[in-house]
Amino acid sequence: MLGIHLCKRFYKWPTKINEIKKLYNPISTVSLNQVLNTTSPNLPTEPTKIKGWIKNIRNQKNISFIEVNDGSDLGGIQVVGNKDAFHQLKHGACVEVEGSLVMSQGKTQQVEMQLQSVKQIGECPEDYPLQPKYHTMEFLREIAHFRSRSNTFGAMFRIRNQASMSIHKYFQKSGFVWVHTPTITASDCEGGGEQFQIKHVPSPDLPPPSNLQAGQEHHFFGQPAYLTVSGQLEAEIYALSHSRVYTFGPTFRAERSNTTRHLAEFYMIEPEMAFIQQADNVDIAEDFLKSIMRDVMENCREDLEFFDKKVDPQLLVRLNKALDRPFVRLTYTEALEILTKQQEVVFENPIKWGDDLQREHERFLTKKYDDVPVFVTLWPKSIKPFYMRENQENPLLVDNMDLLVPDIGELIGGSIREERYPQLLNRIKELKMDEETYQWYIELRKFGSAPHGGFGLGFERFLQYLTGMKNIRDVIPIPRHQNYCKF
Amino acid sequence: MLGIHLCKRFYKWPTKINEIKKLYNPISTVSLNQVLNTTSPNLPTEPTKIKGWIKNIRNQKNISFIEVNDGSDLGGIQVVGNKDAFHQLKHGACVEVEGSLVMSQGKTQQVEMQLQSVKQIGECPEDYPLQPKYHTMEFLREIAHFRSRSNTFGAMFRIRNQASMSIHKYFQKSGFVWVHTPTITASDCEGGGEQFQIKHVPSPDLPPPSNLQAGQEHHFFGQPAYLTVSGQLEAEIYALSHSRVYTFGPTFRAERSNTTRHLAEFYMIEPEMAFIQQADNVDIAEDFLKSIMRDVMENCREDLEFFDKKVDPQLLVRLNKALDRPFVRLTYTEALEILTKQQEVVFENPIKWGDDLQREHERFLTKKYDDVPVFVTLWPKSIKPFYMRENQENPLLVDNMDLLVPDIGELIGGSIREERYPQLLNRIKELKMDEETYQWYIELRKFGSAPHGGFGLGFERFLQYLTGMKNIRDVIPIPRHQNYCKF
Repeated sequence: MLGIHLCKRFYKWPTKINEIKKLYNPISTVSLNQVLNTTSPNLPTEPTKIKGWIKNIRNQKNISFIEVNDGSDLGGIQVVGNKDAFHQLKHGACVEVEGSLVMSQGKTQQVEMQLQSVKQIGECPEDYPLQPKYHTMEFLREIAHFRSRSNTFGAMFRIRNQASMSIHKYFQKSGFVWVHTPTITASDCEGGGEQFQIKHVPSPDLPPPSNLQAGQEHHFFGQPAYLTVSGQLEAEIYALSHSRVYTFGPTFRAERSNTTRHLAEFYMIEPEMAFIQQADNVDIAEDFLKSIMRDVMENCREDLEFFDKKVDPQLLVRLNKALDRPFVRLTYTEALEILTKQQEVVFENPIKWGDDLQREHERFLTKKYDDVPVFVTLWPKSIKPFYMRENQENPLLVDNMDLLVPDIGELIGGSIREERYPQLLNRIKELKMDEETYQWYIELRKFGSAPHGGFGLGFERFLQYLTGMKNIRDVIPIPRHQNYCKF
Repeated sequence: MLGIHLCKRFYKWPTKINEIKKLYNPISTVSLNQVLNTTSPNLPTEPTKIKGWIKNIRNQKNISFIEVNDGSDLGGIQVVGNKDAFHQLKHGACVEVEGSLVMSQGKTQQVEMQLQSVKQIGECPEDYPLQPKYHTMEFLREIAHFRSRSNTFGAMFRIRNQASMSIHKYFQKSGFVWVHTPTITASDCEGGGEQFQIKHVPSPDLPPPSNLQAGQEHHFFGQPAYLTVSGQLEAEIYALSHSRVYTFGPTFRAERSNTTRHLAEFYMIEPEMAFIQQADNVDIAEDFLKSIMRDVMENCREDLEFFDKKVDPQLLVRLNKALDRPFVRLTYTEALEILTKQQEVVFENPIKWGDDLQREHERFLTKKYDDVPVFVTLWPKSIKPFYMRENQENPLLVDNMDLLVPDIGELIGGSIREERYPQLLNRIKELKMDEETYQWYIELRKFGSAPHGGFGLGFERFLQYLTGMKNIRDVIPIPRHQNYCKF
């Protein structure tokens, strides 16, 4: 796609069909993961070829052990061979090894290979930055084009893939429709200054559009356009036609804060469901999260054990506790009572009814409940977005929820949406929002409206929760944040 | 997420735990699709509740038939009841119907409902723009917040969902890892002027960054940043660590052309595989496309029959033909011979070896081969991007392919990538590209390089191919193109 060289030259080259046809071969790669999961009686009797990268070399007197990995497995395969066979090979090189598979005598590996021949596919000079020694996360971030070859990031992106699939599986089995809501959107954030604007920088070779007046800026879309901060509003369109839908895609915030919890580009999963009420929303969120956690733990056992061992020794204990117990459910008002009456901690930010929770308050609550996730529901309307539904029994509250988890804080935020035409219109006027911009959103309430709601899961925060990784930049393939846009 | 109203007021509201606890109910919605797939002996004996929207009302002397649909099925369920029961209800209203399910006497429907009671959930005044009559596609695009409630778009987005899932299924069963490559990227397109730039418009309330010099523009990322036109380059990082990966996400082009084939935001699926060669890539592309088509046809039979009947009467014939026959494989040079030697058509754009194919040439080729998809392989290097691998036998060619399908033209484009360090570096210098920008990409070839390649499928073009829809704006939930950014 990139770099099309436009110099077209004339060449009449003779057709060499036969020679070209020779090129067509069947696919011949065997994934390492498949090999390693073979059991003794099923091991092939013929020699097997494996392609991958050298992760480790151990030399003994006459024989050597190399670990070859193609990225499909945490451990890779141990290849045993004559010391001479390997002596040219360096850590990081790409190789093809051929040999017979045998059950290993060692404890860590089921299947290993007795080498017959090895071929170097791609060499690896000694200035390879990813050496087999301890590297800091900061350094690995610097070499983000190599870090996925390390054990930690190899495992991370297998887990990320599995979590993505577990999420799809959960929704699809319940008849949800995946909706690709637009990344480019017309709605500006409410003056928070946290949205990116999109500009078309026309090629200097092209004439400017002829209908522009002097001093007028050219908008490609005929109006200012932004990167979406959430697909929720558009997902509501589809909840009111297909009943159960979800989004799963990138969302954007121009966060100025350089923290371990914020990215400029991150992924959100946002289910939106017609015909549900506050209680359903909370129930579904709990069921959803537990199902995904269970599915990932079942399918990525070895990778999660690696994080438990190397990154966060409390990881599996904490995850299992969350799975085994019902999540805590507090109303905002109950949470405030707890926070204001407690004597154990002096908060830096004293809190009173009507205030948003700060990190220290969130941390106090999850700690109080022994690291089990805590739902805080029914928040004050005054600090929540316009679309949240007023609580039936108390007009100062909205039907919403935040799910707090240890260390991370808010993992899920959701609400029932105001589905009543007069109430929504009223709220939009009250907040002095631009009615014109939200005309379509208001109209959804005029024609065939239905109670509906949903929630958003921050995918990277979820991955932090799942793996114990401290910095959100280390759970996404290529992070984007203030002053960083490499690649 | 939107519209957080920051006026925080102090309220100490009494906790009403008991009343709030009452709200928590189990989920009670039954999806219509499940109901309709029930067979006679399994029909529930108790009354069933269904929630959905009224799609059709037919009145007879004493009884009425209404069609209720929740978006999970093309046909909806027929509800038979006393005429009086329905007399207040309008087309488009949201209702809850309760009654007994019985096997229908009619031909089109398996299960229908004998009404016991009906409750209006959301009314639908008569100025509802989506009336039960013929609407043009242009008009439906104008009311994109309602069009998903129509039969055509209801079916379209069920098919889009299924196609997405078939794609994930195909890759996952073969051990591919889904990689979320960044939407925001540093690489500028090669002067085509087709890329969008991202600007942060800081809130007027915030002070500007202090390290800016006079006249200097503030870049949030510390450098100019763009919306990606392809995730391929970044996917290559992961192909060289996890062997088999794919992307599935939005990509962007600032296309100035107002055509039925272009969007400013569209979805691409880009598998990238280590250890493959030209022939494998073509084989995999054919197997991939056929597998997805088969899976969608199996899972969305009724919806595809609808498109065959209402949109394109040749649809199923064409799809089945593509499935039953091997795709045609021509080299570019063979294609040029055919195009220049043929006597049947006079092309508007005469073509010679070294030129790119135009629409009329693509159309001629797919027609010549009876609407079976045609691979055109091994194109002139001079008109292809820098990253394509030089053909071993002929340095004027690259190891690539385009797949052409009837009406749409190019559906898939792919190649083997130049994996050799000196050759890639040389090519980048030859094309006077910025070495610094592509340093990381070049380094992938220095350390543990491996032969690799892949292809990109334009998802919306594929959906056009699958459904016969003429305009690409009608296969994506909310289209984005020049002068259009509603919602």
